[in-house]
Amino acid sequence: MMVLVTYDVNTSTPEGRRRLRKVAKCCQDYGQRVQNSVFECLVDPLQFKQLQVQLANVIDTRTDSLRYYRLGANWKNRVEHVGAKAGYDPEGILFLD
Amino acid sequence: MMVLVTYDVNTSTPEGRRRLRKVAKCCQDYGQRVQNSVFECLVDPLQFKQLQVQLANVIDTRTDSLRYYRLGANWKNRVEHVGAKAGYDPEGILFLD
Repeated sequence: MMVLVTYDVNTSTPEGRRRLRKVAKCCQDYGQRVQNSVFECLVDPLQFKQLQVQLANVIDTRTDSLRYYRLGANWKNRVEHVGAKAGYDPEGILFLD
Repeated sequence: MMVLVTYDVNTSTPEGRRRLRKVAKCCQDYGQRVQNSVFECLVDPLQFKQLQVQLANVIDTRTDSLRYYRLGANWKNRVEHVGAKAGYDPEGILFLD
């Protein structure tokens, strides 16, 4: 399933900047960065749970936030990209939109 | 329909920072900020088109990007929030998740 992960990490401290890097690194293991703080992850339910656990262990819930959007089977029809950076297909075939 | 808008704006110049403020301001007219560069907008098709036109007129497509995700009718079941800032219901009733 396609899961969109968006995050806000408070980077006003060195610890925050470290958390930001860690969050991005976790997400990179599961998906593709499409914007600075937005990843699209094609995962099965177990992988999704693992990602959630890993990210929950990284962030500071007092200052940082994560949002998960399950885009469902029809996710390709739900996404539209405008501007810099070409669209991509996380299933492996490049496309331009 | 619920549309998620995510954006990356290059803020390395004063013009970029101005564009960033303009993008946020446009989005605020149509929805609710849920993270720094993420808005959830409950719009009809005409409003969605208007928002797209306005944002396209603001960004610099060489350096900035927009992504739109149509979350569909079941959007509430698709969203999960973790950490800072409580979830909200753009239809008006607050909920906590």
